[in-house]
Amino acid sequence: MNRNSVVTFGESLLRLTSPGFERFLQTPNFTAVFGGAEANVAVALSSFGMDATYVTVLPENNPIADAAVAELRRFGVDTSQITRSKGRLGTYYMELGADHRAGRVVYDREYSAMALARPGDIRWDSVFDGARWFHTTGITPAISASAADLSLEAMRAARKKGLTVSFDLNYRRSLWKWGKSAQEVLTEMIAATDILLANEEHLRMILGKDGLVGARAVADQALTAHANLKAVAISLRESPDAGRHSWSACLNNRQEFLTSRRYDITHIVDRIGAGDAFAAGLIYGWTNLDSRQAALEFAVAASCLKHSIPGDFCRATVEEVHALLAGGTQGRISR
Amino acid sequence: MNRNSVVTFGESLLRLTSPGFERFLQTPNFTAVFGGAEANVAVALSSFGMDATYVTVLPENNPIADAAVAELRRFGVDTSQITRSKGRLGTYYMELGADHRAGRVVYDREYSAMALARPGDIRWDSVFDGARWFHTTGITPAISASAADLSLEAMRAARKKGLTVSFDLNYRRSLWKWGKSAQEVLTEMIAATDILLANEEHLRMILGKDGLVGARAVADQALTAHANLKAVAISLRESPDAGRHSWSACLNNRQEFLTSRRYDITHIVDRIGAGDAFAAGLIYGWTNLDSRQAALEFAVAASCLKHSIPGDFCRATVEEVHALLAGGTQGRISR
Amino acid sequence: MNRNSVVTFGESLLRLTSPGFERFLQTPNFTAVFGGAEANVAVALSSFGMDATYVTVLPENNPIADAAVAELRRFGVDTSQITRSKGRLGTYYMELGADHRAGRVVYDREYSAMALARPGDIRWDSVFDGARWFHTTGITPAISASAADLSLEAMRAARKKGLTVSFDLNYRRSLWKWGKSAQEVLTEMIAATDILLANEEHLRMILGKDGLVGARAVADQALTAHANLKAVAISLRESPDAGRHSWSACLNNRQEFLTSRRYDITHIVDRIGAGDAFAAGLIYGWTNLDSRQAALEFAVAASCLKHSIPGDFCRATVEEVHALLAGGTQGRISR
Amino acid sequence: MNRNSVVTFGESLLRLTSPGFERFLQTPNFTAVFGGAEANVAVALSSFGMDATYVTVLPENNPIADAAVAELRRFGVDTSQITRSKGRLGTYYMELGADHRAGRVVYDREYSAMALARPGDIRWDSVFDGARWFHTTGITPAISASAADLSLEAMRAARKKGLTVSFDLNYRRSLWKWGKSAQEVLTEMIAATDILLANEEHLRMILGKDGLVGARAVADQALTAHANLKAVAISLRESPDAGRHSWSACLNNRQEFLTSRRYDITHIVDRIGAGDAFAAGLIYGWTNLDSRQAALEFAVAASCLKHSIPGDFCRATVEEVHALLAGGTQGRISR
Amino acid sequence: MNRNSVVTFGESLLRLTSPGFERFLQTPNFTAVFGGAEANVAVALSSFGMDATYVTVLPENNPIADAAVAELRRFGVDTSQITRSKGRLGTYYMELGADHRAGRVVYDREYSAMALARPGDIRWDSVFDGARWFHTTGITPAISASAADLSLEAMRAARKKGLTVSFDLNYRRSLWKWGKSAQEVLTEMIAATDILLANEEHLRMILGKDGLVGARAVADQALTAHANLKAVAISLRESPDAGRHSWSACLNNRQEFLTSRRYDITHIVDRIGAGDAFAAGLIYGWTNLDSRQAALEFAVAASCLKHSIPGDFCRATVEEVHALLAGGTQGRISR
Amino acid sequence: MNRNSVVTFGESLLRLTSPGFERFLQTPNFTAVFGGAEANVAVALSSFGMDATYVTVLPENNPIADAAVAELRRFGVDTSQITRSKGRLGTYYMELGADHRAGRVVYDREYSAMALARPGDIRWDSVFDGARWFHTTGITPAISASAADLSLEAMRAARKKGLTVSFDLNYRRSLWKWGKSAQEVLTEMIAATDILLANEEHLRMILGKDGLVGARAVADQALTAHANLKAVAISLRESPDAGRHSWSACLNNRQEFLTSRRYDITHIVDRIGAGDAFAAGLIYGWTNLDSRQAALEFAVAASCLKHSIPGDFCRATVEEVHALLAGGTQGRISR
Repeated sequence: MNRNSVVTFGESLLRLTSPGFERFLQTPNFTAVFGGAEANVAVALSSFGMDATYVTVLPENNPIADAAVAELRRFGVDTSQITRSKGRLGTYYMELGADHRAGRVVYDREYSAMALARPGDIRWDSVFDGARWFHTTGITPAISASAADLSLEAMRAARKKGLTVSFDLNYRRSLWKWGKSAQEVLTEMIAATDILLANEEHLRMILGKDGLVGARAVADQALTAHANLKAVAISLRESPDAGRHSWSACLNNRQEFLTSRRYDITHIVDRIGAGDAFAAGLIYGWTNLDSRQAALEFAVAASCLKHSIPGDFCRATVEEVHALLAGGTQGRISR
Repeated sequence: MNRNSVVTFGESLLRLTSPGFERFLQTPNFTAVFGGAEANVAVALSSFGMDATYVTVLPENNPIADAAVAELRRFGVDTSQITRSKGRLGTYYMELGADHRAGRVVYDREYSAMALARPGDIRWDSVFDGARWFHTTGITPAISASAADLSLEAMRAARKKGLTVSFDLNYRRSLWKWGKSAQEVLTEMIAATDILLANEEHLRMILGKDGLVGARAVADQALTAHANLKAVAISLRESPDAGRHSWSACLNNRQEFLTSRRYDITHIVDRIGAGDAFAAGLIYGWTNLDSRQAALEFAVAASCLKHSIPGDFCRATVEEVHALLAGGTQGRISR
Repeated sequence: MNRNSVVTFGESLLRLTSPGFERFLQTPNFTAVFGGAEANVAVALSSFGMDATYVTVLPENNPIADAAVAELRRFGVDTSQITRSKGRLGTYYMELGADHRAGRVVYDREYSAMALARPGDIRWDSVFDGARWFHTTGITPAISASAADLSLEAMRAARKKGLTVSFDLNYRRSLWKWGKSAQEVLTEMIAATDILLANEEHLRMILGKDGLVGARAVADQALTAHANLKAVAISLRESPDAGRHSWSACLNNRQEFLTSRRYDITHIVDRIGAGDAFAAGLIYGWTNLDSRQAALEFAVAASCLKHSIPGDFCRATVEEVHALLAGGTQGRISR
Repeated sequence: MNRNSVVTFGESLLRLTSPGFERFLQTPNFTAVFGGAEANVAVALSSFGMDATYVTVLPENNPIADAAVAELRRFGVDTSQITRSKGRLGTYYMELGADHRAGRVVYDREYSAMALARPGDIRWDSVFDGARWFHTTGITPAISASAADLSLEAMRAARKKGLTVSFDLNYRRSLWKWGKSAQEVLTEMIAATDILLANEEHLRMILGKDGLVGARAVADQALTAHANLKAVAISLRESPDAGRHSWSACLNNRQEFLTSRRYDITHIVDRIGAGDAFAAGLIYGWTNLDSRQAALEFAVAASCLKHSIPGDFCRATVEEVHALLAGGTQGRISR
Repeated sequence: MNRNSVVTFGESLLRLTSPGFERFLQTPNFTAVFGGAEANVAVALSSFGMDATYVTVLPENNPIADAAVAELRRFGVDTSQITRSKGRLGTYYMELGADHRAGRVVYDREYSAMALARPGDIRWDSVFDGARWFHTTGITPAISASAADLSLEAMRAARKKGLTVSFDLNYRRSLWKWGKSAQEVLTEMIAATDILLANEEHLRMILGKDGLVGARAVADQALTAHANLKAVAISLRESPDAGRHSWSACLNNRQEFLTSRRYDITHIVDRIGAGDAFAAGLIYGWTNLDSRQAALEFAVAASCLKHSIPGDFCRATVEEVHALLAGGTQGRISR
Repeated sequence: MNRNSVVTFGESLLRLTSPGFERFLQTPNFTAVFGGAEANVAVALSSFGMDATYVTVLPENNPIADAAVAELRRFGVDTSQITRSKGRLGTYYMELGADHRAGRVVYDREYSAMALARPGDIRWDSVFDGARWFHTTGITPAISASAADLSLEAMRAARKKGLTVSFDLNYRRSLWKWGKSAQEVLTEMIAATDILLANEEHLRMILGKDGLVGARAVADQALTAHANLKAVAISLRESPDAGRHSWSACLNNRQEFLTSRRYDITHIVDRIGAGDAFAAGLIYGWTNLDSRQAALEFAVAASCLKHSIPGDFCRATVEEVHALLAGGTQGRISR
């Protein structure tokens, strides 16, 4: 395994997308890409030139799962720590939205190998050997009690090993069905986090402070409620319709409250994975750039670029992100 | 046949579209969809959960026409009243417009089975048995004298049976070649109509009142000129270029003049069939919703959604239309 | 060969484009089109109904090059003057940009048959027999010393034969590697030009007047520095992102300074070849329309339409350009 | 529901096939078709002009399952008796074989709505009202104990109602995991069958008579062991490689032992569903043709044609089957 | 127009083919190619390096017909003699056959511009100026009385001008509906022919000699019955199924009876146009090769190659035909 | 780098293939795959579960070359020893053959980074550290003098390090243009080889013994002429047409002369890379299986499977090869 690598952990998903702007099975074809929030982060980090190790649990004796591993390897992600076990490969179907028609996701991820995994299935001590950062999200704990326990086990093991732990809240209402409430579980996970990422609405809800107005207030409240947090980053999306969004973020690292440039994105190609590109960008910036402001700007620009790329993965280089930050030339063709 | 069904009548067309934004035969492929204004209305009504019966005349012993019937059946449209006869299957070729390049339609619908059909070919008495609404458009009478006679026969038979008759003016200048003027024939059809749908420009022309300014004045004039009309609905499209339109409508039901919300549609996927989605939405709303305002809003929202869907058919559900009306969430992904 | 034809000369290129908005080899497919600035001009002129002869040097015994010739012939371009010789077929790979992600071109055109061609390889006297106009660009001289010499030979031969010579500056920084500077060579070519086309930035640079502000001043300076020039046309592009540009042009013909209508292009399909469509439009207008203003407007409208058409070629007719100039109906479908 | 209809019952499956002869995810696309043995039989019967009702259990609130229903309706299958419930939509991935490389199926059908269904979930009395034939297969009982109970419940209810019950043994070794052995369950189902269909190898195994040699002996043994059986039909496939098979069948109806013509199929397009086309052909022939020999020949010819059609469904007409039986003209183009 | 060119005359058709081996509209796509027997001959001749002029009547103001002309031009066919007039573009739909499923053609060519054309519409004197050979087929006279008259007018004008006239009998039973019998009209056309091409079955039928056995006897009878004929070539196809045919031909030129090599074609890609490739090969061989045997072998080899090429056109070079005749290396890759 | 790995060395190529059986640019699309003989061997070995390191020289700053590296990494090949340098990415265009039409390859590989590479550019000592086998072919030395020197340098360095060196003769006549004859250079390379692979015709030619008849005699002669050779393996292909070949091999290891099973391959999907699959199979078998006969059979079966897989790479597992060797079930679907 690589030294100084970033480890991410979560469920891999096969995404089956209708072609173009078609509704499901309007023509009998699906485009297949692999994704999953934490895999997306690992791929983006690897594309940024960092050592990234992705940990997940996939079904054994399954050539589709083999293809998922191969696809990650293609981007240079270290897949040697992936466990193969019983269960299904999580899948979801997607229609891209257009104009006033919202995009639609239909999950088919019950009984996945990840959902069936339990604490003890992964040897975290060995996984974290030589790593410096651990990233996971609030999606995995949503899918089963054992996956929630395993996620928490991972976060605690990482902190014990001295890794920085980032956690993307990623609240998915439709997935929380196994018993405990999202608020209860995610609060416990925040308590094991160094750097928290979230959108304003979800974080307000998990904090249980409906009255708070504004990203700044929400971030303050998170830092107040959770003394373990070193920083809170909040992404801000405004979305009048399916094709036009604006995108920016802010960050409170207990020293300063930073806000980023705001991008108007008017011809969205694929917004899935934009939040993950933001997380990867923040991790990259945090560990490679001079200031927190630079890290925040890098994260927002990286996730802005993600909106222009089909599939879950942010296939952009550090040079391309910096070119966007340098600005003004995105309408040209780079020859 | 279903009870309380809506019957629509008109020509079915095979549409052959160039891929993406390509010009004709830039690559040697066509996407094939079935359409035709009245078939589009039947499919939309069926997608809204209503019983819809589609009546047309198609060529016999023709597997492409068989596929047209099968496609309608796929949406749950009752196809048992379709007549098979001599003649061709109407066809049209389409290039999607983009930016400042207009979309283009090349008709190849001469000598179609529908154009060759004559009064007496369809047993309207049996077709209308148990139905409550009849819808047709001004396209069918444009294609031949006998089709015009047949259309008028249908409208009169429907009214005699006590059905509500809606008529979408749909003036297509390039089709009127068989002898009588569009104004003469369409005026006769309006005289057999309960609810008239049109755009402002076409209705003004057919009414022969070039000086009228504004949709309200045109609707008033139609109601004045045709005492049989219970309501006139006028759709309003502004279209600076091929990708960006605004879309709204108004309605005069002799009691009130209602105007709808106006949608800015900035990334049009396919505008063919939007008017038919409006007609279907109005029929749905008229028979299922509490107020005429609600019906009008439903019709406009349904046709707004149509602009985001490839092909002639409005593949949207009642829930999706209501979600757009409830507003504000179309930029999100519905998971 | 056709009488009164326009002759264009330059390198043909095979362009391999990733599908949709995908990054290179995201899926293992390329769309293949032929292009090259001067071929694009010839195709556009032929589509406008003019006699166009395209001169180039292509590899012999190469079926891909045969297909390039066939594709040009398809548009009615006279390909009988094309020379087949040693060397490769110039190729380039392209990713379309989207939103804040710039389009990207990767050239693979070294050692092409055109780059290896030398003065004397083409019998200009016979090529120009019966022609009235010659057009070439600053791309060909960039690829090799011998191609630069050949380009200059062509321009001089054309002027000697009494043809009008138009020259599109088309400065491509990444291509100039063979020794002489772009400024030196392109200046020599401007000296053999009647009508110069350029964008403001490139022309300012070649003129070596960094301090000049505005297209008008740059055009004035070109006319001042080069007494042979009859006119200078400058295209003006503003490009906030990859999908939205504005497009206009101005022209100084030593009698008047003309400016064109400005188009907001908000959903760019493919901008490659827009400059070539402008050149073709200007040549068409100069030789067929009543005024220089009309010629300029035609050129800008033609190149505006090009942005809506996939591939390098401007597949638009004179009627379509005039329809855009007549205005206001581009949002409609032409049936 | 239609009178005299044939009812089929079993699991619907979404099949995701790699393009052409590619291995899984060699390119990131899947072709999507719906299938499942009993759905295939219903579609074939409907294509033969018979009334067919398909009964299954599909997940509720699932647009992919909605599309499955729509696709069946497209072929005229009565889908009004389909139950929507909890659980997943059964899925399978498929690679087509070629030459010496075997085709490959990867099932992802655990926890499907059908597997979770239980006796009592379907009102058989109403389903069978007006029907004359019931067909099911040995696949459904393989997927869960409750599905096995439900299958048996269906067969018994059908016989009680006086329907002819046909049962296709369809032993799928990899699916039998829920506890009871295939032999135990399938033997119980044979005991509720009138007409049994199987291949020789599977039937021998279920009969527990490994020593039997030849289809005739196996059929005899089945009739001896199960006095309820009116007939046994055995399909015979020889398959030297993935592209070339020979295909025939025999039938023992306790009066005569009939054998069919044997077809050499040398360019197999898609063999999935060939056995189901055989079953549908036999049901069609049994109820529409003059002799059992004619029925057997029709069944074999229908399933021979299926090998030439992509997807699970046998999209062939009665006329096409008879044309093949009439023979000698399959190499011609039917104009 | 080119000197010494071969002129062919007949209807152009747009062919819309289902993808792969799919049945009509199994997926909503068609591949579009242009064809028509006489256009196919012109394209093949042009691919063989000969000057070919194609004469037809196409609808005016029709961009699909424009594309047909452009496609022919792409192959270097002289399209300057094509007439544009009233009427439709003839179209046909095609399913490729596979194994025991026959290919299927659905014609939609009624009221085509060609069918509406009449004697006098084409200035044959100018068309035939400088030409040496005229080729037409028995398809055009089948579509209308006026087209039959026009065909005959062309043949007679060609003979009068001293051109060699070849006529491919091409009897299409389903097209002959306009009044006169095929036998009557085609016999009249044979009387204006120098070189007759046909298959054995059709020629026997037109000769009205059902009792004749064997191609040799049929050819003898044609020469006996029609003193004007200089030669009769008969193609011989055996077709056990849709993918495997054998293909050969024989020729009687009143001096010798020649038979060709016989090819087993076991993986047919597309057989449409094979007969036209045979005709083109014979014309090429007759005018370019040393002996009639060489001409016959060239014709058979060219049409053998056609079976391996998608679309109507025989995209093969003289070199490729000779390589096949030289034999033995077709299993290798030519690098 | 992995221990005990097999190192392969040679040029990487981008292959651009026309879709289906189309001729070049019949439709404007290419399928893109990466290949090159030695890359193919590395991928096959990795698919067989062995550690494989691929060494090549690719252009720097080239995203298409980046994709080549990523694609190899996807299969688990160690790409860490790849050098990036000046020059192009070798490319070739391919048409698949069909029936009597031969496949066609058009090379565009001049001035590639590999052709420009020279001895000293690769640090063989480090590359071979921990490796046990080195494989290269006769293609790389064909492209330039320096590449030939580099190849020889590699072979000698490998032998010096104690690795087993296998060499696949792979004579490509059309590539040898740089000066020395293939015979001279390849003979020198054979002298640095342990295990030689070739086809009979090429080896006979390089040995300069035209009179030798039969693979056995040719193998004997190679062993006689080159005392360093431990074994000679000869693959045997018979190819009546483009779709049907037979395939087998023999091996002389100075102890016994072994011959393999012979496979009739009747529906070839893609034969490119079959020889490389044979080489990989032999390396796998030599190092993992019990006998030379088993190694030979494994190699032939692996390469037999390759014929059924699109692209250059043999995407088959050890289990699949053994299943074919176990025999008899390839016509079945593996579920």
